[in-house]
Amino acid sequence: MSTENSVFSKVAIHTFTNKPWNLEACIAHYTRAGVPAMSVWRNLIDPAEGGVGIEEATKRVRDSGLAIPALVRGGFFPWPTVEERQNAIDLNRQYVDEAAALGAEMVVLVVGAVPGLDLAEARKQVRDGIAAVADHARDAGVKLAIEPLHPMYAADKSCVNRMAEAREICEALQHPAVGIAADVYHIWWDPDVEAELRLAAEQNTLFGFHICDWRVNTRHLLTDRGLMGDGCINVAKFRRLVHSLGFEGYHEIEVFSEDYWAMDQEKYLELILQREEACR
Amino acid sequence: MSTENSVFSKVAIHTFTNKPWNLEACIAHYTRAGVPAMSVWRNLIDPAEGGVGIEEATKRVRDSGLAIPALVRGGFFPWPTVEERQNAIDLNRQYVDEAAALGAEMVVLVVGAVPGLDLAEARKQVRDGIAAVADHARDAGVKLAIEPLHPMYAADKSCVNRMAEAREICEALQHPAVGIAADVYHIWWDPDVEAELRLAAEQNTLFGFHICDWRVNTRHLLTDRGLMGDGCINVAKFRRLVHSLGFEGYHEIEVFSEDYWAMDQEKYLELILQREEACR
Repeated sequence: MSTENSVFSKVAIHTFTNKPWNLEACIAHYTRAGVPAMSVWRNLIDPAEGGVGIEEATKRVRDSGLAIPALVRGGFFPWPTVEERQNAIDLNRQYVDEAAALGAEMVVLVVGAVPGLDLAEARKQVRDGIAAVADHARDAGVKLAIEPLHPMYAADKSCVNRMAEAREICEALQHPAVGIAADVYHIWWDPDVEAELRLAAEQNTLFGFHICDWRVNTRHLLTDRGLMGDGCINVAKFRRLVHSLGFEGYHEIEVFSEDYWAMDQEKYLELILQREEACR
Repeated sequence: MSTENSVFSKVAIHTFTNKPWNLEACIAHYTRAGVPAMSVWRNLIDPAEGGVGIEEATKRVRDSGLAIPALVRGGFFPWPTVEERQNAIDLNRQYVDEAAALGAEMVVLVVGAVPGLDLAEARKQVRDGIAAVADHARDAGVKLAIEPLHPMYAADKSCVNRMAEAREICEALQHPAVGIAADVYHIWWDPDVEAELRLAAEQNTLFGFHICDWRVNTRHLLTDRGLMGDGCINVAKFRRLVHSLGFEGYHEIEVFSEDYWAMDQEKYLELILQREEACR
C-alpha cells in the first residue's frame, strides 16, 4: 500500500451524517463497511437527547475497535451572565472527560455567539472560556479543536468564522491542547485559506479536517450540505494540500442533509464511500 | 436642522426593496413619502425584464426630482470563455451609460463567480473586467462600486466576499472611478469591518452604504433579509461610524424579503421609514 493510499484510507464519518442511526447502528454499519473511524456526536451519548449515556457509549465504542477522532461538540462559551459562562466551562470540562473515556483525540468546539452581543466581546469570552478548559484537556490527553464556522452562522452559532480568527485565539493562548478543526464547508471561499492551513500545519494546530461539499443552490443554511461531488468545493485539492502539509489525521466526513437523511442509510453509506474515493 | 439630522435625512431606497412596484409606482410613493433618493434596479429599465426602457426611465427619473445614488447592478465579470468575458465588459459599459443617463452616481457591481471556476482565477477576471470598464466610467462621470457579498454567495454570485478583498482590487487598480459599496448585511460579521471602513474612507473608496438587517433565523439565503431592527446587526453603530468617517452619501435601504414583498407596499413603506428613524 502506498503512502498516498494509506493516508487516504484514514477516513472517518461523523455520526450526525447518518442521523437516523443510533450509536449501535453507526458502529455496526461503519465496521461492516470497513470505515476505520467515526466522530461521535453527543446526541448519541446524552440521555437527555435519547443517547445511551457515557458509560454504555464508552463500552460500545471501545469494543468496536473504531478509532474516534472527535467528540462533537463542545464550545458555546459566550453568554450574557457570568453564571452561564461558568456553566459552559463546566460543561466543556465534562465533554473533555467524556472524550477521554471514549478515547477520542479531540473535542470539536463550535465556539458560540449570542444574537445582539457585540462580536468582539463574544470573541473575548470564547478565548477566556477555552483558556479555562485547556489545562484540563491537556491533563486528560484530549485536544480542543476550534472549528471556524461559515460567516452565515455568526449570529448565533459561532463568532469565529475564518481560519485566521481561530489562529489568533491559538496564538493568544499558546497552549498545546488548543488547535483548529478545518472544515472545507466553512472555509473554502476564503482567499487566505491555503495560507492559513499552511500556518496551522507549521504551528502544529491543524488538529482536525472535515470534508463535505457546498451545494451551489443551497436551500437551507443548516441542513442542505452536499456530499463531496455535489457542489463547488474542490475537495480533492484540499485533501492533497493538507496531506502535503504533513497532516496525518482523519479526513472526517460531516454532512447535514435532509435529503440524505431521508435516504435508506445503508445505500447512503455506500454512496458516501464512493464519493470519498472519487475525491482522493 | 443639525448636521446629524441632515446626514441621516440622506436616505435612499432600492427599488427592489419594493419589488411589487414598477418604476412609476416607486417614484410616486417615494416622492409622496418624502424619500429624497432611490437606487434603481435594472429590472425596471430592461424591457426584457418588463422594464420601461432606458429612455422612458431616464425621463421619469429626471422628472421626479429624486436623487439616484446607484444603478443596480452591474458586474458578473468571470466567465469560462473570452467571448463571454468581453460580453460582460460590454454590458457593464452599457450600464455605465445608463447610469449617466439617469444621473446615477454609481453602478453597483456584484462581481460574479462561476461554480467550479477557481476563485483566484475568478478574482483575477473580476479585476481585469473592472479595469476594462473604469476609464469609460470615469469619462461618463459614473463611479463603479464593488459590493463585497456575504461569503454564502461565493459559489455563484460574488468571488469578492470581504471589504479587504474589495480594497485589494481598488489598491491594484488605483483608479478614481473604482471604489466600494459597503452593505451591512454582507460585512457585519467580519472582525476587520471597522478597520476596513476606516481604510476605505481614507482611500476615498467608500462610495456606497447599504442598510438592512440579518434575521437570526435566516430561512432563505437570498430572500429573507430583515428590515433594520428585525435582526442582530447594530445598524445604528455602523451608520454613526460611517458618518464619523466623513461619509456623505446616502444610506440606502436594500431589503429582499418574500415576507415584506407579500405585504401591502404602502404600509411596508411606512414601516421602512419608521425603522430607518429608529436606527439613527
